[in-house]
Amino acid sequence: MIKESVGSINILSAVKQEKIIINPIVQNVHVHLAAPSMLDNRADADRIRDYLKGKYGRVRIPYNSIRAIPEKCREFNWDFNVLLKKNETGWELLKFFAAQAENKLRKNYGLAVDIGTTTVVVALIDMETGMCLGTSAGYNGQVYFAEDILSRIYFASDHKGLCKLQAAIKETLNALIDDVCSKCCAFNEDITAVTVGANTVMLHFLLGLDTSRISREPYTPVINNTGFLTAEDVGINVHPKGVLYCLPSVGSYIGGDVLAGILVSNMHEREGISLLVDIGTNGEIILGNSDWLVACAGAAGPALEGGVVAFGMRAEVGAIEKVSIKPCGEVVYKVIGDVKPKGICGSGLVDCLSEMLLNGIIDRSGRFTGGADYFTVVPAALSANGQPIVVTQVDVKNILRTKGAVNAAVEVLLEGVGCNIGDIEYFFSAGAFGRFLDIESAVNIGLYPDLPRDRMTQLGNSSLEGARQVLLSIDRLLEAEKIATRITYFELNSSQEFMNKFVGSKFFPHTNLDYYPTVRDRLKEKGL
Amino acid sequence: MIKESVGSINILSAVKQEKIIINPIVQNVHVHLAAPSMLDNRADADRIRDYLKGKYGRVRIPYNSIRAIPEKCREFNWDFNVLLKKNETGWELLKFFAAQAENKLRKNYGLAVDIGTTTVVVALIDMETGMCLGTSAGYNGQVYFAEDILSRIYFASDHKGLCKLQAAIKETLNALIDDVCSKCCAFNEDITAVTVGANTVMLHFLLGLDTSRISREPYTPVINNTGFLTAEDVGINVHPKGVLYCLPSVGSYIGGDVLAGILVSNMHEREGISLLVDIGTNGEIILGNSDWLVACAGAAGPALEGGVVAFGMRAEVGAIEKVSIKPCGEVVYKVIGDVKPKGICGSGLVDCLSEMLLNGIIDRSGRFTGGADYFTVVPAALSANGQPIVVTQVDVKNILRTKGAVNAAVEVLLEGVGCNIGDIEYFFSAGAFGRFLDIESAVNIGLYPDLPRDRMTQLGNSSLEGARQVLLSIDRLLEAEKIATRITYFELNSSQEFMNKFVGSKFFPHTNLDYYPTVRDRLKEKGL
Repeated sequence: MIKESVGSINILSAVKQEKIIINPIVQNVHVHLAAPSMLDNRADADRIRDYLKGKYGRVRIPYNSIRAIPEKCREFNWDFNVLLKKNETGWELLKFFAAQAENKLRKNYGLAVDIGTTTVVVALIDMETGMCLGTSAGYNGQVYFAEDILSRIYFASDHKGLCKLQAAIKETLNALIDDVCSKCCAFNEDITAVTVGANTVMLHFLLGLDTSRISREPYTPVINNTGFLTAEDVGINVHPKGVLYCLPSVGSYIGGDVLAGILVSNMHEREGISLLVDIGTNGEIILGNSDWLVACAGAAGPALEGGVVAFGMRAEVGAIEKVSIKPCGEVVYKVIGDVKPKGICGSGLVDCLSEMLLNGIIDRSGRFTGGADYFTVVPAALSANGQPIVVTQVDVKNILRTKGAVNAAVEVLLEGVGCNIGDIEYFFSAGAFGRFLDIESAVNIGLYPDLPRDRMTQLGNSSLEGARQVLLSIDRLLEAEKIATRITYFELNSSQEFMNKFVGSKFFPHTNLDYYPTVRDRLKEKGL
Repeated sequence: MIKESVGSINILSAVKQEKIIINPIVQNVHVHLAAPSMLDNRADADRIRDYLKGKYGRVRIPYNSIRAIPEKCREFNWDFNVLLKKNETGWELLKFFAAQAENKLRKNYGLAVDIGTTTVVVALIDMETGMCLGTSAGYNGQVYFAEDILSRIYFASDHKGLCKLQAAIKETLNALIDDVCSKCCAFNEDITAVTVGANTVMLHFLLGLDTSRISREPYTPVINNTGFLTAEDVGINVHPKGVLYCLPSVGSYIGGDVLAGILVSNMHEREGISLLVDIGTNGEIILGNSDWLVACAGAAGPALEGGVVAFGMRAEVGAIEKVSIKPCGEVVYKVIGDVKPKGICGSGLVDCLSEMLLNGIIDRSGRFTGGADYFTVVPAALSANGQPIVVTQVDVKNILRTKGAVNAAVEVLLEGVGCNIGDIEYFFSAGAFGRFLDIESAVNIGLYPDLPRDRMTQLGNSSLEGARQVLLSIDRLLEAEKIATRITYFELNSSQEFMNKFVGSKFFPHTNLDYYPTVRDRLKEKGL
């Protein structure tokens, strides 16, 4: 569990789970050898391999390490540490260094990375202790070329564009790495493993892979599971031979970020049925238990993102993150950074919609009841740029579409496996909007199901947490790979059933209020 | 079995053995895939992996191949060939190319290499058919820096010297590769695997590894088994990602070349006891059967090499390769290339010594009987450079030392395992001098044991043949690795017993004539 207090911003996981048993993908091993003698004149490399054999099998020694062996053995007087890195089937010698006293810093650092379409987060992890030493976050540099994911795929359709996008994400990553290293007094070279949670498109851009077939039928990615690459393959400024491992994707629309969510939630091991909803740039929905896992995805998210809603913005300084409306009509809001508000971020918007619904400002179909076609959250005089911050009829319809898509997708999945909403024993929300949303507000507008609240968990940045887990535990990594092969994907793009449900689901919180008993009671209480 | 007629010189194996079942370390696989559809929109890479899974398990796809996949799949319309290369634990995608009609040339070439201290031989092998397409041989370019192996180790003791020796062997190899490719109309890029049989020192020079500890106590090499390297690691001009696999060494004095001899002789699988004698620059002796294998080595060879014997030279044009002495005293000889003789090569020298012994020109202790201290093989008038070609008393003593060292080593090994010479069911000679020596001559001077001739086999260039076998057969490769772990090495450098036997073994053919019944009869026949 990464402690939230470690980073300066709340970017890390909030999910409670058992402590991982640390068995990282790069391991620091103390090697203490007998010097060669006439009674034991094994080759230097054999001496090292034999020492490691018990725990690590036959360790692969790459060419450059072979050359370094005789000098290092004697420089360190047969007493030293090696870093071993995991590969597909075994271990590989990565680095030698002097044996250190127990109380000294052992430098075996890993980097967990979440590459979002908008934001990139890195966490520097001590792979000996599992401690997060520091974090750094910033915009994905690709946003300067194209904002949303489809525009980026279009931008990458010529090779130069793809190169620019790959260069941009590398630059972003390398800047964040420099930043976190300088914060933690670490050297880039000391980072010997990088694990990445990213959606399929971001993964393709990072690796410079053609994305042109992801967005059109039959929606095929180049690769789902890249296996163990090295940092120098891509040009990440850490140890050049360091491991680069990306959490596997399942397809064009279920990426390693979603897989991380499943891993972090442990829904793949629970007997009871779980529903995982990951609403970011896309909306991905996973349903399943220890026996089966089904998934679907659709472009659900953009409505909650800056750019789609008139005054929408990211959760940063100046964003309204919480909203309530008093019975007298007064709007009470909370702004990140305690400054004059500039716009509304996702959580503020969901709060606002919920309050507008419960106060009768909009009806269940999303129409404004008072004749107006917008709602003023902040009057011009109080906003940062002298313009009123409003939620328009178009904004409401967009959000209705988003949550309608989620509802429809959940229902298609449930029907597909012959379950109903009441069978869901665990609900997990993941992704950018599964972090700070007020659960009650999300239930009120129907974005989350109306389940007993003790069944509901917000996972936080599960993409980053998943990356951290596979960095620190080979068992978790193998589990992630196994999950990827277990998921059955429902293609919604060609599903008539989905379209029917989608068209019929454009009511807050749902067409059928029976699915939302607590919201029904609240509306009734308010006389709505 | 490489056909001897294929090459222009007789550099290949002469040993008869069963045909290898071809299962090469780089395999050419035809891949025919269904194009993606909405019903099957797996990632391109998964589609390929799934296709190969049955036979090859989970194929590793390196970064550069990942990038090429989508274009290649479509360029070849989902019907193409891939080359898969073996690594420590599985297979790796190396190359794509267009699917070819059955009768067209499939380019999957491998290169078997024998790196000797003096000579380097390469054989271009079609890994589909197992056919040898051509060979090329030349001097090891290192001879220009230092002739014998100990001088080279000394030369390499400073790093610049090591770099020069590595550069020299690379240059030699690359020139031979260019030569064999141009002979066979092949491209260097089409060679995707290189397997090497070499002694431990040559292996170290090829890889640029420190040899300073090989020649002094406790005689430790840097590495015995390098595993699967790539051609670009070392700078061999074939496909840069092609496999570079060196037959494993056992220690400083038992290299991959000797291991190849064991493999080719199959002595490690025979129930009866075999003796393998490899007299090249060093003399290595292996004794064993399917249960056990013991080995020892000593600097036995140089006496037979050019430079040590006054008129010694390599087996090339101008060398006397066969000698007999008529009862009248006339010397009959055969010169390679049918030109005027320049010197005597190893086989000519052994013939000559044998004839000198049987004609009473030297006695069993190697002393000249007639008062002279040399024997004229070719008078000045008939030689290439107007000087008589002679065998001197010093030459005879040198050869006596060489064969004495072999005798002593064999006896130490036999005693070590509680056997005697009569228990040897198979005798194999390998290495540079195990190719063209006349068996009777070699027995006469005591270099070979006096066993029934049907138990004796000359392996030819078993280093090259072993390299060819591991190139064409993973099973043979695994066998070679297993053999390496089975050998028990007897260190002769510190053995008093060896020294005693060595001192006592300076008689032709042996101190104890009972060990050489046929030679005793011949001597008796001649009244000697």
